[in-house]
Amino acid sequence: MSEQKKIAVVLSGCGVYDGAEIHEATLTMLAIAKSGASYTLFAPNVDQFHVINHLTGEVMNESRNVLVESARIARGNVSDLKEYNAADFDALVFPGGFGAAKNLSTFAFDGHKCSVNQDVATAIQSTASARKPIGALCISPAVITRVLGNVEVTIGNDSGTAGAIENMGGKHTQTTHGEIVIDRNHKVVTTPCYMLDATIDQIEAGANKVIETILSMI
Amino acid sequence: MSEQKKIAVVLSGCGVYDGAEIHEATLTMLAIAKSGASYTLFAPNVDQFHVINHLTGEVMNESRNVLVESARIARGNVSDLKEYNAADFDALVFPGGFGAAKNLSTFAFDGHKCSVNQDVATAIQSTASARKPIGALCISPAVITRVLGNVEVTIGNDSGTAGAIENMGGKHTQTTHGEIVIDRNHKVVTTPCYMLDATIDQIEAGANKVIETILSMI
Repeated sequence: MSEQKKIAVVLSGCGVYDGAEIHEATLTMLAIAKSGASYTLFAPNVDQFHVINHLTGEVMNESRNVLVESARIARGNVSDLKEYNAADFDALVFPGGFGAAKNLSTFAFDGHKCSVNQDVATAIQSTASARKPIGALCISPAVITRVLGNVEVTIGNDSGTAGAIENMGGKHTQTTHGEIVIDRNHKVVTTPCYMLDATIDQIEAGANKVIETILSMI
Repeated sequence: MSEQKKIAVVLSGCGVYDGAEIHEATLTMLAIAKSGASYTLFAPNVDQFHVINHLTGEVMNESRNVLVESARIARGNVSDLKEYNAADFDALVFPGGFGAAKNLSTFAFDGHKCSVNQDVATAIQSTASARKPIGALCISPAVITRVLGNVEVTIGNDSGTAGAIENMGGKHTQTTHGEIVIDRNHKVVTTPCYMLDATIDQIEAGANKVIETILSMI
C-alpha cells in the first residue's frame, strides 16, 4: 500500500471579491480528501489589498489579514506560507478568487507587469524545481505564469486575461466547464472554474479533475 | 417532467466560530445543485454577536454584519431573511456553525432558555405551518427545537447540547457521521456534521443525506 499523498493548498483570504473563492477552496479540499490524499493549508501573513462588501461590491473602510481570514475556510488550521517546504509535500494547489490577483499578486491592477508576493513566488519556484505538480484554479494560473514564465495554462475564455498570460510568456488554451490544461513539462494543471459563469457543481467537476490529474503525476 | 424544486438556505455569517460553517454551507449548496433543485440564500440583516479571529480563537475589536458576511459564501447573491416567504419555496435548510448559536439565536450563551432572531423564528414557523420540510445541520437543530418545541432531532452525541434540546421540549437521538434523524410529523431532517470531530467528506455525506431526504418529502 502506498503512503498517503500530501497536498499543500494556498489560500488568499475568504471571499471571492477580496480573497480566496470559498467554493473553489472548499471543493479543492473535498476533492483531496475523497481521493485519499491529505491537505495542509497555507496563506501569506499579509494584509489584504482591501476589503470588499460582498453584498454591495463597495470597498469597506477596514483592514483584514489574509492568513487570519483564510483561517475561516480552514477552521483555524492554516499556516503562514513562509513555513511551506516543498520537500514536505507531493504537490501544491492554488484555488482562485480575486485574492490570487489582489493579495498573492498585483495581477488585478498591473496585469502582465504584476508582482507576486515573495512567499508565493518562492513556494511556486521551489515546487517546480523539485519537479512536483502544481494545480491552479480560476485566475490563479496567471500567478503561476508570472512566476514560471513559459507555461501552458487555461483561465477559460476571457481574452483580456488570456492576452496578459501570453504577455507574461505563457501559452493560453481556451477551455470550458470542468476541462483542464496539462503542461507536462512544468507539471502544471489548470482549470477555469468561476472565470466562467459557472454553477457550483461545475466547480466541483473542475476541482476533481485537477486533483485527480495531479495525483496521477506524483 | 416535474418542476424544479426550490430550497431556501439560511446563512449566519461566514466562518465556523462566529458565523456559518463554510464547508457545511458550501456542501449544502452543492448537494442541492447536484440533485437538480435550486437554492436561494438568505441571512438576517443584523450585526454578528462578535468577530472571532479564526487563527487564534480570540475576540477581535470589530463589528461585522451577518448578511454582508454571508454574501462571501453566496458570492453576493443573498437576500435579507425578512424577504423569505414560505409560499415561494419547497423547503428550508440551515447549515451549522456557531453563527446559528450566536447570531440566529442566543443558544451558545443561554442554552435551553435562548431567544431566537425574530426573522429566523418566523421563517421556521411559517415553513412548518405550510407543511414543508426543514433541514438542519450541526448545531442548527437546537434553533429549530427552540422554535418548534416537540421535535425529534440529532446533534450527534454531545450530552450537554442533547440535554438542552430535551429541556426545550425536543427529543434527541444520538447519531454518528452521515446519519440523519427524520421527524416525519414536523418534516424536520437533521444531521450532526461538525458537531462531531468530522472530515470534510463526512460533511458532504451528511449534507447529501439531508437534501436527498428533504427532496423525497416534497
